[in-house]
Amino acid sequence: MASQELINKLEETIENFPDFPIPGIQFKDISPIFLNPKLYEEVIADLTAFSKGKVDAVCGIESRGYLFGIAIAVALEVPFILIRKKGKLPPPIISEKYDLEYGSAEIETREGHIKKGQRILIHDDLLATGGTTEAAAKLVEKQGATVSQFSFLIGLKDLKGEEKLKKFGADVYSILEY
Amino acid sequence: MASQELINKLEETIENFPDFPIPGIQFKDISPIFLNPKLYEEVIADLTAFSKGKVDAVCGIESRGYLFGIAIAVALEVPFILIRKKGKLPPPIISEKYDLEYGSAEIETREGHIKKGQRILIHDDLLATGGTTEAAAKLVEKQGATVSQFSFLIGLKDLKGEEKLKKFGADVYSILEY
Repeated sequence: MASQELINKLEETIENFPDFPIPGIQFKDISPIFLNPKLYEEVIADLTAFSKGKVDAVCGIESRGYLFGIAIAVALEVPFILIRKKGKLPPPIISEKYDLEYGSAEIETREGHIKKGQRILIHDDLLATGGTTEAAAKLVEKQGATVSQFSFLIGLKDLKGEEKLKKFGADVYSILEY
Repeated sequence: MASQELINKLEETIENFPDFPIPGIQFKDISPIFLNPKLYEEVIADLTAFSKGKVDAVCGIESRGYLFGIAIAVALEVPFILIRKKGKLPPPIISEKYDLEYGSAEIETREGHIKKGQRILIHDDLLATGGTTEAAAKLVEKQGATVSQFSFLIGLKDLKGEEKLKKFGADVYSILEY
């Protein structure tokens, strides 16, 4: 959906760091995007176009998922729901565990922020193995809502995250794919 | 600067949780603000009015500082610089340690994202004891820039964070004060 011009600009802006944070991983630092508010707005316009009219709320995953997610929600004029790391939200909460390459983690959301029957966009900056995103989708379903869409700035195809998300029957979109 | 109407709406929206995350702390959950995109936009308009014409870049502190900070930067049409927790940004980085009630922590930013001579707004959602904010201000000064302003959604007066920030000679603004 994104124009080739936007893709080119993003590829020039995102910086690649081999072997960070651990050997074998190539880290993509998206922080230079935020130095350029016009480029940031083009990203938001593209991600908003994907979701317009199709969702009732946006869930953003802490912390980089907040950087684009909140602006998508505001552009769509729908609620933005924080998915946070364990222990940061007061009770009552809904939580979901997931596996990491190195151990396990847990994400949480305030009970009641996601409403029954809502069509939800789950947004994060990066789709890698899909573990965190899958856990977020389970949180959504636990609240009786439906995951209608997933959107990402970057999707890493080799890590097969998209396959892990297939069971939710939602549209998946990444502006950049590697 | 904020209208009494905005203050009232925020006070009705923010939820108070005594003894979270530890006994003696009253946690203020700001997450319901993001469920209401119109209210969020009023907060951004107010924080943007405070900074308009007075700063060349905005630094936001991970992770809740991103939720308002990125939108302030976009509204001001200036760069947004991520201040992250330790270990999340690739080198070269600038880092600063600070004390917590329970131990110490470290924040980091990419070297070169803050430019020499820039007038910087440091934004976070909450000013408590001011330890994290002070460390962020030191990062700014290490890069040869000036902290011109601090802004917060909430300032907790009793914890005397504002006094800790006095040495930077910057304007300090919190929409809500307790």
